Amino acid sequence: MNRILRVNTRTGELRYVKTTEKEMQEGGRSFIVHNLLREVDPACDPIGGDNHFIIANGLLGDTSLTTAGRLSIGAKSPLTGGVKESNVGGSAGKALGKLGLKAVILEDIPEKVSCRVLVVRKDGAELVETPELQGVESKKTIDALQGRYGTEAAVLCIGPAGEYRLSAAVVATTDHTGVQVRVAGRGGLGAVMGSKGIKAVVLDSKGATAPKPADPEAFSDVKKQIAKIIRDDPKTENRHDYGTPAVLGTCNALGILPTRSFRTGSFEQADAISGDTVAELIVKRGGEGKRGLPCVRGCIIACSNIFPHPDGKAHIASLQYENIALLGSNLGIGDIDEVAELNDLCNEVGIDAIDGGAAIGVAMDMGLLPFGDAEGAKELVRQVGQGTAMGRVIGSGAAVTGKVFGSTRIPTVKGQAMPAYDPRSLKGIGVTYAMSAMGADHTAGNALETAKYLDPQGTEGQVQISHKLQVRGAILDSFGVCLFLRPAFVKDPELAAQLLNARYGWDWTYRDVRAMSDECLRAEHEFNRAAGIDETRCDIPEFMRKEALPPMNTTFDIPRDEMQKIWETEVEEGVF
Amino acid sequence: MNRILRVNTRTGELRYVKTTEKEMQEGGRSFIVHNLLREVDPACDPIGGDNHFIIANGLLGDTSLTTAGRLSIGAKSPLTGGVKESNVGGSAGKALGKLGLKAVILEDIPEKVSCRVLVVRKDGAELVETPELQGVESKKTIDALQGRYGTEAAVLCIGPAGEYRLSAAVVATTDHTGVQVRVAGRGGLGAVMGSKGIKAVVLDSKGATAPKPADPEAFSDVKKQIAKIIRDDPKTENRHDYGTPAVLGTCNALGILPTRSFRTGSFEQADAISGDTVAELIVKRGGEGKRGLPCVRGCIIACSNIFPHPDGKAHIASLQYENIALLGSNLGIGDIDEVAELNDLCNEVGIDAIDGGAAIGVAMDMGLLPFGDAEGAKELVRQVGQGTAMGRVIGSGAAVTGKVFGSTRIPTVKGQAMPAYDPRSLKGIGVTYAMSAMGADHTAGNALETAKYLDPQGTEGQVQISHKLQVRGAILDSFGVCLFLRPAFVKDPELAAQLLNARYGWDWTYRDVRAMSDECLRAEHEFNRAAGIDETRCDIPEFMRKEALPPMNTTFDIPRDEMQKIWETEVEEGVF
Repeated sequence: MNRILRVNTRTGELRYVKTTEKEMQEGGRSFIVHNLLREVDPACDPIGGDNHFIIANGLLGDTSLTTAGRLSIGAKSPLTGGVKESNVGGSAGKALGKLGLKAVILEDIPEKVSCRVLVVRKDGAELVETPELQGVESKKTIDALQGRYGTEAAVLCIGPAGEYRLSAAVVATTDHTGVQVRVAGRGGLGAVMGSKGIKAVVLDSKGATAPKPADPEAFSDVKKQIAKIIRDDPKTENRHDYGTPAVLGTCNALGILPTRSFRTGSFEQADAISGDTVAELIVKRGGEGKRGLPCVRGCIIACSNIFPHPDGKAHIASLQYENIALLGSNLGIGDIDEVAELNDLCNEVGIDAIDGGAAIGVAMDMGLLPFGDAEGAKELVRQVGQGTAMGRVIGSGAAVTGKVFGSTRIPTVKGQAMPAYDPRSLKGIGVTYAMSAMGADHTAGNALETAKYLDPQGTEGQVQISHKLQVRGAILDSFGVCLFLRPAFVKDPELAAQLLNARYGWDWTYRDVRAMSDECLRAEHEFNRAAGIDETRCDIPEFMRKEALPPMNTTFDIPRDEMQKIWETEVEEGVF
Repeated sequence: MNRILRVNTRTGELRYVKTTEKEMQEGGRSFIVHNLLREVDPACDPIGGDNHFIIANGLLGDTSLTTAGRLSIGAKSPLTGGVKESNVGGSAGKALGKLGLKAVILEDIPEKVSCRVLVVRKDGAELVETPELQGVESKKTIDALQGRYGTEAAVLCIGPAGEYRLSAAVVATTDHTGVQVRVAGRGGLGAVMGSKGIKAVVLDSKGATAPKPADPEAFSDVKKQIAKIIRDDPKTENRHDYGTPAVLGTCNALGILPTRSFRTGSFEQADAISGDTVAELIVKRGGEGKRGLPCVRGCIIACSNIFPHPDGKAHIASLQYENIALLGSNLGIGDIDEVAELNDLCNEVGIDAIDGGAAIGVAMDMGLLPFGDAEGAKELVRQVGQGTAMGRVIGSGAAVTGKVFGSTRIPTVKGQAMPAYDPRSLKGIGVTYAMSAMGADHTAGNALETAKYLDPQGTEGQVQISHKLQVRGAILDSFGVCLFLRPAFVKDPELAAQLLNARYGWDWTYRDVRAMSDECLRAEHEFNRAAGIDETRCDIPEFMRKEALPPMNTTFDIPRDEMQKIWETEVEEGVF
């Protein structure tokens, strides 16, 4: 963590720079926003030379804590025009940690279109020209690079969509078993990577060893306490067996499952694409299918999966709730194999399944093709890879697609598509969509869990709860750990500080952790304001304030001025 | 002027409402922004039910003053997301005046896609279902409606682009001779009209008489003074003979003529598309070609034209500088007949020739087709009418086109394409592009004339001059008169107040006129801020600050913080 690799993509210059004391206390998401504020003109063109493409490890990214190693990708977003952090599992975070790197920062843009790979090894880094990879899809790119640099090498890459600099382009990455393709999906960060002329980053940590914590025993002790809490948590088993798809049934029952481009909140074929169905089919089909996979090595929750074809051959890894919803119910598609195929295609061409699914939904809603037309939907995703006009529109995400089709029903906030939680019947997440600097992003503060104790359709308490969820999100994203680690910190918030103290030899309390998170959120809003985004005016789309959502027949009715007071609401000390 | 017609496009209800005393003192552009501020949620969806589509007559729109009758079309813009006024000549303004109407306001949106015509007569108005006009191009629409309601009826209509609610859609209108198709081009207001399900507005003023001025003799006297000044002005004859195309040579020499998507500021084939060439060909070809046409009845400047085919048949009326530049040099096309054809096609499908030309330029710059490919460019415009994916992209304007093609060279400000004056070598207009609530719009404050006394490439005085030009623009656009009337007010600013006093029986001085303009500009910024546009952050695109523009090799280098102080700069009393 004591070095940062800086790459000037115009000159080809590579520099290792010592991490400053201030940077040392930043991690992942908080590193990204502070780096942007320090060095990037907020008004810059997201795909121009002034933007940075940042790969940043969380504060605990080089430790063996369970779930640690989730990686933050960041930049000024081409989709939202504001700061963006997109969080991803896989093997890259741990590799970065082993290589002793806090971050890799790609600066400037090349003078001519170029296709290069940045290879980072223990003893140095180099830029390699790879014209043969131009236009190549994600998995083939990964295979080619792991063929060259070894299957142990972690790869971050873009598909054709990123090379086209489309606003919904993702950064795809490997897991440690060479099976999963994980993606940093939100915010179009693949377009920023593409603008730098970098097709992939290879992190070859052979021979490198992650640094030891400042106090190994203390770290091991806290780590064990946390592992025990997680193992004992009643949700862990369900997460292991069913993963995120498990919540599809919950969302359908709550009436917040995006269905037919957010026309309704429940789907008559929900059972066919539910978590139960996914799990059952994995077991029944056997073969390469698998449940309970970790996304980062050593995670004891292990909520990922390999979803197989009917013949047992691996189809996609991993199949997640948000993608099933946006590519399934949202398109009126009730066939899980078609959904898997669509998801796989999105990964291959390199676009976000959420924004891509929302874009196709909008196109269906405007009559381009009928809801339920899986073949038509797949063809649209293929066209993204081919760079046709329609493909480029879809690959630019739901906001551009809606504009091009003249739609008044565009499910986006700050240009970014809503994930799989309709805010009309889960109002807390609506506040997050509107007020987070991240735009419509469930990972910024998902209110789903609050539905157990707070009427999700009521307006009471939703603003405050969103504030709390956003504080928590910023902590987890800066630590480089998963949301599912939360039960440990709920039980004892001080564990969060103890982890940092053991890793770095600091003397923090929860209060310091909280201050770091508050400062991260504040800095994000500062960046957005300076980028010309007037956050106080952001809102849920007009149609969601007017059009009632069946089956609950609710509109989004939290007054804008009440949402604007979010940062004045109290979040209790220690709350997680 | 003492009535306003309000049409609820959802319920079909039509209401004539008495103009309030406050509204009486607003006209055209100032009426639009004040109506929006009073009644429209600035955060609304531009093509949703909360927006207004406003047709507003200028304060002098019902008088016989030369150039009076230019009409303001306004709404929250789908292109910029802010307030927009687009000004147009033609016969509709005078017809509105005769009908005693200050404005027509279309409210709400229909529940289902519909194609209706609003017919306004002396004795009332009605909404007529016209499914036969769905998808019909502009001229055919006008012909069909004038066939039905008489050739004297003024028509405002949209082409297919407006029906598709594309962000660069225009509102086309007739002149009093049934020859010209004039368009209110900027800001995508055709999409707002389309969203209301209104294909056209027919203003049939048969039997109606414009109200007499409060003091007819005084009015006649001021009018005569103004006419004399205009007739005596040395620029008038040139304007009459050559019209706006005359400035193409000037702009080419200054190095501000957009050429090959703003790659250079002069065009080696400039002579072939210049004002001289246009004028010569009109004379040489004869037939239906004509110079010195008025755009509003009674204008003594009469700078419009009918540009003929080689065989003398009318091709397009009128051919204007900005369109020649954006569709000619900007696309590397040096054939004036091809430019005329492209312009005609833009009018027919109903998109702005400026934003459409800039969009095709960006597509050419990104390699979709080569510069100079007139056939390819025409095919793209035809596709707008057909509603293909590529057509919808181009019809959404340069900003969306640039995004979809992943370009870093998008010549837009606030989402709107720059007209035919590259701000790198005419810096005053750059300040207007960045700081006007209207986005990149030369009519908001064109600094071209200032090049005579202020170094156009220098930074000195440009911010202040833009302020002055913007004040003047808001006066003229609120009066409903042409920029070319300016020499009269330069000679004696009090003439502006005297016109209002004679028309309305007021007691204004220039100071009141100026206050009205200041208040109009202030209100526009208030609306934009409330719409979430942080005006202090607006800037010229990054590439124009970095990429030097040949042949002068200038970048846009007025510091952002200096531009932000524009409203603090002094504009002398009486300056016009």
